[in-house]
Amino acid sequence: MPDPHPDTHDIIQANRDHTLFSWSVQTQTNPIHMTGGKGSHFFDGDGNAWLDFSSQLININVGHQHPAVLDAIKAQVDTMCFAGPSFATDVRAQLGQKLREVTGLGKSFFTLGGSEANENAMKMARLYTGRDKIITRYRSYHGATMGSMTASGDPRRWPVEPGVPGIVRAFDPYCYRCPFGKTPDSCGRECVSHIEEIIQMEGPHTIAAIMVEGITGSNGLLVPPDDYYPKLRALCDRYGILLIDDEVMSGFGRTGTWLATQHYGIKPDIVTCAKGLTSGYMPLGAVVVSDAIAEYFETHFLAGGLTYSGHPVSLAAAVANLKVYEDEGLFEHTRELGEYLGQCLEAMKARYACVGDVRYKGLFSVLELVRDKATKEPLAPFNGTSPEMGRLAAHLKSRHVYAYSRFNFLWVCPPLVVTREELDEGLAAYEEALALVDEMIGSPVAAD
Amino acid sequence: MPDPHPDTHDIIQANRDHTLFSWSVQTQTNPIHMTGGKGSHFFDGDGNAWLDFSSQLININVGHQHPAVLDAIKAQVDTMCFAGPSFATDVRAQLGQKLREVTGLGKSFFTLGGSEANENAMKMARLYTGRDKIITRYRSYHGATMGSMTASGDPRRWPVEPGVPGIVRAFDPYCYRCPFGKTPDSCGRECVSHIEEIIQMEGPHTIAAIMVEGITGSNGLLVPPDDYYPKLRALCDRYGILLIDDEVMSGFGRTGTWLATQHYGIKPDIVTCAKGLTSGYMPLGAVVVSDAIAEYFETHFLAGGLTYSGHPVSLAAAVANLKVYEDEGLFEHTRELGEYLGQCLEAMKARYACVGDVRYKGLFSVLELVRDKATKEPLAPFNGTSPEMGRLAAHLKSRHVYAYSRFNFLWVCPPLVVTREELDEGLAAYEEALALVDEMIGSPVAAD
Repeated sequence: MPDPHPDTHDIIQANRDHTLFSWSVQTQTNPIHMTGGKGSHFFDGDGNAWLDFSSQLININVGHQHPAVLDAIKAQVDTMCFAGPSFATDVRAQLGQKLREVTGLGKSFFTLGGSEANENAMKMARLYTGRDKIITRYRSYHGATMGSMTASGDPRRWPVEPGVPGIVRAFDPYCYRCPFGKTPDSCGRECVSHIEEIIQMEGPHTIAAIMVEGITGSNGLLVPPDDYYPKLRALCDRYGILLIDDEVMSGFGRTGTWLATQHYGIKPDIVTCAKGLTSGYMPLGAVVVSDAIAEYFETHFLAGGLTYSGHPVSLAAAVANLKVYEDEGLFEHTRELGEYLGQCLEAMKARYACVGDVRYKGLFSVLELVRDKATKEPLAPFNGTSPEMGRLAAHLKSRHVYAYSRFNFLWVCPPLVVTREELDEGLAAYEEALALVDEMIGSPVAAD
Repeated sequence: MPDPHPDTHDIIQANRDHTLFSWSVQTQTNPIHMTGGKGSHFFDGDGNAWLDFSSQLININVGHQHPAVLDAIKAQVDTMCFAGPSFATDVRAQLGQKLREVTGLGKSFFTLGGSEANENAMKMARLYTGRDKIITRYRSYHGATMGSMTASGDPRRWPVEPGVPGIVRAFDPYCYRCPFGKTPDSCGRECVSHIEEIIQMEGPHTIAAIMVEGITGSNGLLVPPDDYYPKLRALCDRYGILLIDDEVMSGFGRTGTWLATQHYGIKPDIVTCAKGLTSGYMPLGAVVVSDAIAEYFETHFLAGGLTYSGHPVSLAAAVANLKVYEDEGLFEHTRELGEYLGQCLEAMKARYACVGDVRYKGLFSVLELVRDKATKEPLAPFNGTSPEMGRLAAHLKSRHVYAYSRFNFLWVCPPLVVTREELDEGLAAYEEALALVDEMIGSPVAAD
């Protein structure tokens, strides 16, 4: 742990005085002064080490300050720090080849983050199919630029509506609160079949693509039933509609595979990625398209680009980061530790009144919190918070466990390098917080 | 100059096989294999040094591989390579403070490039004013994401139209081809007054902002009359409309000042920047807002963000890059050399039949090429090219001078570190190319 930073108070004040913090009312922000990190921990200016159970914004998959990635970045900086997007570079060839290998698709178009990756995926789908509409899901987040924001079902789109034309929204495979009122016994996979009805009503010939998060992330981590993707893929094939798989959050080892959809044995037409692609060490996103789409753009104009498409340092960070995943067997580790995490979460659900549901795949997991397991009344309203959620977050903070919570959801998404001991340590703090919530809702946990 | 790269052919082929190049038909791309650079030159895999007269995409202002910026990047990588956007960091405080100083505005919101900077500027203007419409100009480019693309008047927006609602377009201060049929003698600044008529017709209370490039870049480098900005500023003030100044290309020394609009003595409400902010060494954009707008977001929700907002390495690159501008007196150098460049361009206009107009400010300059000086018939049609423009580009390439040309425009935008000797060398190649064009259009230049 580093020495306390002498000027933490001043630094925080200067950040507040001179910069704007995202997705917030400025007076209500309470930033931590970050000074460094290592593995599963980051450090603050007061000398505390925080256990990073949200991997920052679910991106720092190889953990903080992994030396192999740092070295690769510095080497690329020394060799060639910038090349424009129309140039061929060594590292561009390397990452393009690697992404082809791990996705099983064709060519990559590079962006800087998930937002522009999804913008370009939508654009390419429209150009390739000659159709305009994109079907997306209500409980989804695809980015903050105008196109990717409109594509999101998330309330974060409300302030910029009406947004771009041509987005059609469908419901989610949210089994805990099935939008069709079904239970596992009565389910007929209406989460897929209603999309076919939407396709019929909208006109199949008008729909370019269905865009989904591999596993929905910031809208509640919705793990679909096992046959959801095969059915959705078949639907796309039936109507010549492209399947765009947004793996920005769920991809690159987060669930123990390159892509979350690889758990379900299907192949999308377009994959978008960011976050785990570089673990956030450098900004980078990518759109990986099928061979058929790549072939189309051999002879048709690709109407997209940006100054920093193919930034050499970003590409070098990605190449090194993907190598760490493989060299250190991080996906196997994620799958193994993920199984254990699943058992822990199930035990928490059994033990705490406020845990309505737990959903997990690899080290991508969430607790859905309720006031009452029978009625499933959420612990905080949709797009809102509550004293209980505030208490829970405050307790985790007091334990220097950094966790992502939103509405009535609490995520467990540590870096993929997390050890079982660190996982136990963090989950112990979660359990203390859940016990406090149980007290607040009048269902205190029984003593052991 | 480095040794020839042994695998240049293979590298180019691998780039083509595995990655997509922007704004092009893939089979028509002809990428150069870039392997490094230094100052005003970059190197290719065959061992050639190219004089970079477009500063890549008019971004690499401090030149290729400036050691001070490289060192700052590597130091930040070693200290802390990533922190999420909700954290306070040392370098975020530093850059925020510096941007406040150089723009004379208030707080900065960080993005990754110009597109998201403009997206967020538009969003903030709408939230702050409670109005929806944005007036932009036809000959403009503000980015490639859906919002920034629609805001652009550039034909690059055509493939994604209709785009976002609420964009209203006005004409440009394009004196060489005045949209109002005026000459300097008859001009009544209709380029401003027609915007007031648009405001009246649209309803002043519906218009959030007028968004303009400080000096229009990729649509012909349109230098406005000296009183254009004071008049536009007054118009904004009259109707409570914000002035958004997109300085992505024209800012940060390109014209010899921090912002191009500083030449005209006005202050915008919002400035967007990217490119010269880091010279492209790291991806970074910023939205700098006035104190009044910053104050608004103290108590109102700022509905925007992205994972890599405030990326520490990008911020460190910017801090070091801005310091290079000051330590090396690059803006003074740019103003001085810009005067000389202006004289050279005027001489070329006098000498070559195909040079219809030249426009310049600092090291930001363009030649507008025509078939006939009297009729001003463009050397290539709007949104098209011609054999003459192709010949000109091919000649510059044969001389290893890297230049940006589009439609009937040919830019001269070397890095700000360019020497007078390098400038002369590059312009000599331009003159050879112009002489070839003059022959093609049947007006060969007279022998000296």
